[in-house]
Amino acid sequence: MIRVGVIGAGFVGGALVNLLQDPSRQIALVDAATGELELVGVVVRDVAKPRVGIDPGLLRDNVESLLDEGVDVLVEVAGGVEPTRHYLELALRRGVSVVTANKALMAECGTYLAALAHENGADLFYEAAVGGAIPILRALRTSLAGERILRVMGIVNGTTNFILTKMTEHHATYLDALAEAQALGYAEADPSADVEAYDAAAKVQVLSSLAFGTPLVGEEISREGITAIRSIDVAFARRAGYVIKLLGVAERVGEHGVSRRAHPAMIPLSHPLAAVHGAMNAVFVEGEKSGPLMWLGPGAGGVPTATAVLGDLLDAARNRVSKRHDVPFSVDDRLFAVDEGDVTSVFYVSVDVLDRPGVLAAVASVFGRHGVSIQSMEQSGVHDEARLSFLTHHARNRDVRATIDELATLESVDSIGACLRVIDGGN
Amino acid sequence: MIRVGVIGAGFVGGALVNLLQDPSRQIALVDAATGELELVGVVVRDVAKPRVGIDPGLLRDNVESLLDEGVDVLVEVAGGVEPTRHYLELALRRGVSVVTANKALMAECGTYLAALAHENGADLFYEAAVGGAIPILRALRTSLAGERILRVMGIVNGTTNFILTKMTEHHATYLDALAEAQALGYAEADPSADVEAYDAAAKVQVLSSLAFGTPLVGEEISREGITAIRSIDVAFARRAGYVIKLLGVAERVGEHGVSRRAHPAMIPLSHPLAAVHGAMNAVFVEGEKSGPLMWLGPGAGGVPTATAVLGDLLDAARNRVSKRHDVPFSVDDRLFAVDEGDVTSVFYVSVDVLDRPGVLAAVASVFGRHGVSIQSMEQSGVHDEARLSFLTHHARNRDVRATIDELATLESVDSIGACLRVIDGGN
Repeated sequence: MIRVGVIGAGFVGGALVNLLQDPSRQIALVDAATGELELVGVVVRDVAKPRVGIDPGLLRDNVESLLDEGVDVLVEVAGGVEPTRHYLELALRRGVSVVTANKALMAECGTYLAALAHENGADLFYEAAVGGAIPILRALRTSLAGERILRVMGIVNGTTNFILTKMTEHHATYLDALAEAQALGYAEADPSADVEAYDAAAKVQVLSSLAFGTPLVGEEISREGITAIRSIDVAFARRAGYVIKLLGVAERVGEHGVSRRAHPAMIPLSHPLAAVHGAMNAVFVEGEKSGPLMWLGPGAGGVPTATAVLGDLLDAARNRVSKRHDVPFSVDDRLFAVDEGDVTSVFYVSVDVLDRPGVLAAVASVFGRHGVSIQSMEQSGVHDEARLSFLTHHARNRDVRATIDELATLESVDSIGACLRVIDGGN
Repeated sequence: MIRVGVIGAGFVGGALVNLLQDPSRQIALVDAATGELELVGVVVRDVAKPRVGIDPGLLRDNVESLLDEGVDVLVEVAGGVEPTRHYLELALRRGVSVVTANKALMAECGTYLAALAHENGADLFYEAAVGGAIPILRALRTSLAGERILRVMGIVNGTTNFILTKMTEHHATYLDALAEAQALGYAEADPSADVEAYDAAAKVQVLSSLAFGTPLVGEEISREGITAIRSIDVAFARRAGYVIKLLGVAERVGEHGVSRRAHPAMIPLSHPLAAVHGAMNAVFVEGEKSGPLMWLGPGAGGVPTATAVLGDLLDAARNRVSKRHDVPFSVDDRLFAVDEGDVTSVFYVSVDVLDRPGVLAAVASVFGRHGVSIQSMEQSGVHDEARLSFLTHHARNRDVRATIDELATLESVDSIGACLRVIDGGN
């Protein structure tokens, strides 16, 4: 008998309790857990509030006393960094295995919590922290444990993918697409965690720790949102055979360098990530020997996410029954963070200029001065305004930024439009 | 120290030995295996033949004597059903864990071998048997162990996907595309295992056993190849917004029915499986609560496949170190095979007719007589020949077959073209 406690009875917590108590799943759950699961209690903020599908007798208002009732696995689906961190520490110190869906907490102190779990003979699983229902983390941890990963690229934020899909397929403006996402409940009233890529950045950190062994210690990584993407950029991308997506990227650079970042990018239509629409998520992994692998699935939603939590819970239960725990992710001390300025890419740069003779020459010479070589250029415009859209050859981020800074000072340049990385067709 | 034996030094075996002996991977392998892996020996047919990258001192000509040297995990990448089955039985009876890439053997006697492994406290892993490098089997076994799977659809044969991609994108005929696949080494001189869907059928059986609990006891499943697909069908599909793929399908029907089959199908271009090109493989899983999930990756090739074998080997090694073995797949005795005639689908049917007045009415009345309702019809043709292309509403396979049998007897019908299932856009 494996005793299970839960913190949180929101969309994910409620769906998990339903799964655990669904009579038609009992046999399968016992088989998979190699033992019976008993739901001991569910900690909520307000025990007086009735919860559909949860027996009021299960509701608890205190994590510590729930642990005192005897718990083998604690599931945390409440979110937030504090006091959640404190509760999970309490559980791990008692040797209770923890399953969490909390990407922010894992990015903040995952290395510490994983070590604590290991010291106390417990598991710490967090599949639902990245990609909702997609079982990518367990695959990195087990199936790909012997593979050398070169790059992980993910569409790991459903809100921004919904917005960008609306802009691409329905020619919506950014603000209209955002408003629709908010109306549908996909985006918060304050959407900054999504559109400024904080959420994607935390997920990149989790993916990177499993793919490369980078630590999860709350450090910031390079981050760029989608608020500056305009319809005209989306349309240019489409004409050029690309689609714009917000990507989370963790990439090996040389032997021990790792670049971690979240930013919009232009993806060739032939790339599997280009076909990931709406609120779907996907993670694309390039292994040295495995070649390209991709996982796709619902990135959010209480019920799909609960299936990922359940997968973790069954794994933790099996380990508990056979009295072992999983290898924690190991931190590779030789790794260093590559300066974002040193990372190279193809770039798309668009510049609004006054349509005068000599403007293109002036603009092109700025690219040349910074060593950024131009692959192709397209001019479009009305009246006395023109838009120049450039695709560069591979260039350093630092050099492209310097080019843009200088372009902005030119008298004939009205404004800088977009500066987006372009994913190679070959990759 | 985990002692590893290997049977087979072909493309996969050679690549695996290279991975195991790559000095730059040693630390990662020890971490992942939670112990050191020692390659004890590699059994080959001809020990005198030199093998690039394999120390001749490692070559053995006898599985039994290799086992006598002391082996914890035996990797089988030689293929064939006999005598391989005998060797794996020998190993499992001694409590040696087995990792195999042998889909034919697993389809033939997987249930028996898994039970034998369990009785002897050993693991039996076979990730590489389906989808090459794609880690789909472990995901079904672990992450999705608590989920109720509704349907699994896979593009699991790279050869036929290459041929169909050539027919779609380069308008090649079936025979030209096959010849190109043979010239590139993707297809055998006798291509029937691929093009007649024997290979896909075996993989469906393996997927179904993990998704639903059907036994692996060598039974035949419904199977239809791609040799009858013509350029004109591919072109029609394209115009109608579909692409033709060979699918392996395992589907829950009602509470305890399972339909297992391999056949070509028309897939809507908006479906993630439609974007799986060339020799890539993909498996699309529909879970009751998880929603749609897809795995994509290289379906063949010695080096990618070796990474899947390595993932299994590390898992078996970890289990060996912690003195446990995995839960074997359980067979659900309540399941029954749904008669292929009872399975419903939308169908595409094309008929070549003499272009005379009244022909369409005659043809349409045959559909009606068998209760097959028509969704849309397109007529094309030259001279006095015409081709009628129909999309039906959902109909039983049995009724569509009966329709076609009767159509073939009509005087005005020259020949039956194609009869293909159509995957719903919604699914």
